[in-house]
Amino acid sequence: MLLFMFILYLCNVMAKFQVSILGCGSATPTARHQPSCQVVDFRDKLFMIDCGEGAQLQFRRMGLKFSRLNHIFISHLHGDHMFGLPGLLSTMALHEVTGSVTIHIFKEGARLLKEWMDYFNRNAPFEIIYDVIEEGERRVLYEDSGLTVESFPLYHRTPCTGFLFKEKPKLRHLKGDMVKFHNIPLWQLKSIKEGADFIKEDGTIIPNTMLTTNPDPCISYAYCSDTMFDTRVAESVKGTDTIYHESTYDDSLEQKARERGHSTARQAAKIATLADANRLIIGHFSKRYNSESILMQEAKEEFPNVILANEGLRIDLE
Amino acid sequence: MLLFMFILYLCNVMAKFQVSILGCGSATPTARHQPSCQVVDFRDKLFMIDCGEGAQLQFRRMGLKFSRLNHIFISHLHGDHMFGLPGLLSTMALHEVTGSVTIHIFKEGARLLKEWMDYFNRNAPFEIIYDVIEEGERRVLYEDSGLTVESFPLYHRTPCTGFLFKEKPKLRHLKGDMVKFHNIPLWQLKSIKEGADFIKEDGTIIPNTMLTTNPDPCISYAYCSDTMFDTRVAESVKGTDTIYHESTYDDSLEQKARERGHSTARQAAKIATLADANRLIIGHFSKRYNSESILMQEAKEEFPNVILANEGLRIDLE
Repeated sequence: MLLFMFILYLCNVMAKFQVSILGCGSATPTARHQPSCQVVDFRDKLFMIDCGEGAQLQFRRMGLKFSRLNHIFISHLHGDHMFGLPGLLSTMALHEVTGSVTIHIFKEGARLLKEWMDYFNRNAPFEIIYDVIEEGERRVLYEDSGLTVESFPLYHRTPCTGFLFKEKPKLRHLKGDMVKFHNIPLWQLKSIKEGADFIKEDGTIIPNTMLTTNPDPCISYAYCSDTMFDTRVAESVKGTDTIYHESTYDDSLEQKARERGHSTARQAAKIATLADANRLIIGHFSKRYNSESILMQEAKEEFPNVILANEGLRIDLE
Repeated sequence: MLLFMFILYLCNVMAKFQVSILGCGSATPTARHQPSCQVVDFRDKLFMIDCGEGAQLQFRRMGLKFSRLNHIFISHLHGDHMFGLPGLLSTMALHEVTGSVTIHIFKEGARLLKEWMDYFNRNAPFEIIYDVIEEGERRVLYEDSGLTVESFPLYHRTPCTGFLFKEKPKLRHLKGDMVKFHNIPLWQLKSIKEGADFIKEDGTIIPNTMLTTNPDPCISYAYCSDTMFDTRVAESVKGTDTIYHESTYDDSLEQKARERGHSTARQAAKIATLADANRLIIGHFSKRYNSESILMQEAKEEFPNVILANEGLRIDLE
């Protein structure tokens, strides 16, 4: 029974790919919304995207664990996307997090953060690594056996980058009866799951397609905030399952959106449509809205599957 | 009627001297407490003391006005006392606060904050003035016609300063009947309220004590956080009406308090006793307490008039 529960736990961990919304307001914290912050949980590794003031408190409120957070991605150098970093990193030091925390950030942000951390966090038991993102860059910022995180350009008032989380291709599923029928030795199963054919002792080749079925699809998630409406964003995230796209304003403020380097909810939905996404999460709401229903409505007129971000919301990306 | 209400409003404003507790936890924000931050309201001018992460949100929750905040006093350079500054000052810029904001802070704090503000807040419509506090200094940091704010040393792990808010001596009260009896001209009333005698045309001197009664007492408030127990603090705030003194721990952690440069609630109460204070506010609670009743109880064993700080609490200092 214990073994079964352990296996079940492992399966859950192995499958886990979700995003938690810690903050989805714009500019300043309000009674309704915190500034930008999300945490992607991929198989129990946590990846923070943006870190507005108050992120550390939301992080703990949502039951997330500092010890599992080793990468923080900062989209751009506006305060509402990074003023939570000093507090978060200091609290991680108090919680005796060890190892390293890599901050993926534009150059000037790395310099400014380092100045503060060298003073306020000089005794931290973990190392802070600064990975400098270049403007307009498309690069794999993070990679492990199951996941890549890539940067791609966004179009805001200041250099800004999106982040694309992609599961790596998964192993093919074995056809149990065929494995048994051909009496395939255990040690060859891994390569067959990876796509190899099976060669019998008499030289007969059993093609992989006879032995396996297609792997589960690879899940992907793109974070697009802050940005004005630009079809190049859709090209960058083409085919992504779930897209988070900023939706600061409603239709009536489209002109203001353009001037401020932001998008309307409808424009976010247009990007989701152009990118052939399955699902759109909208956020980065202007504080003028007491309810975001107008943003939801306008987005849904362009794209059917829209989720309104909210603090505390967890979304399974599977 | 309108005139009466206006006079009543003016009287209220003129009399107002209160402190609002925005944060009274230690080290990190928790579900129960925010890091250190208070706002003293003296006749509608606001003075912030310390500015932990989340201060700007608490500030607005308590209905305080950014436009009235022109002085911020930072006791020492630990994150839980100043990580709210970048967000607060950026939000003040978004609220189009003009004029100037003076930050009274130790030198290295001024340097670090300036680095960030020169980048993140470079377009602010107000000027940030940095008033550098020296270690161990006793100095009038702020003065206007009714108030002084002085620094005095505290004894923490890092240079730390307390802040003493003192009303200036008030004018004496005129005895209306005597003023009438001696037929004192209107233009002389101000000097008589300030303590001058009245000299009649025939040279007779009417001593001031015949014409006036004592002024209202001058109210004072001292902020003592963070500090270990040290009787020199009591000397510095001798005779202060209301003292806020940090009370991080209970009796059982007195040794830890000493090691960490903090105080127990009982020690805070001893300082209030030694200083002949009327009232003690305790705060800067360790996050280990789910209820601070033990701190209240231990403080009250030493000093009768104790208030437990809490976020949202407003205390009249009159």
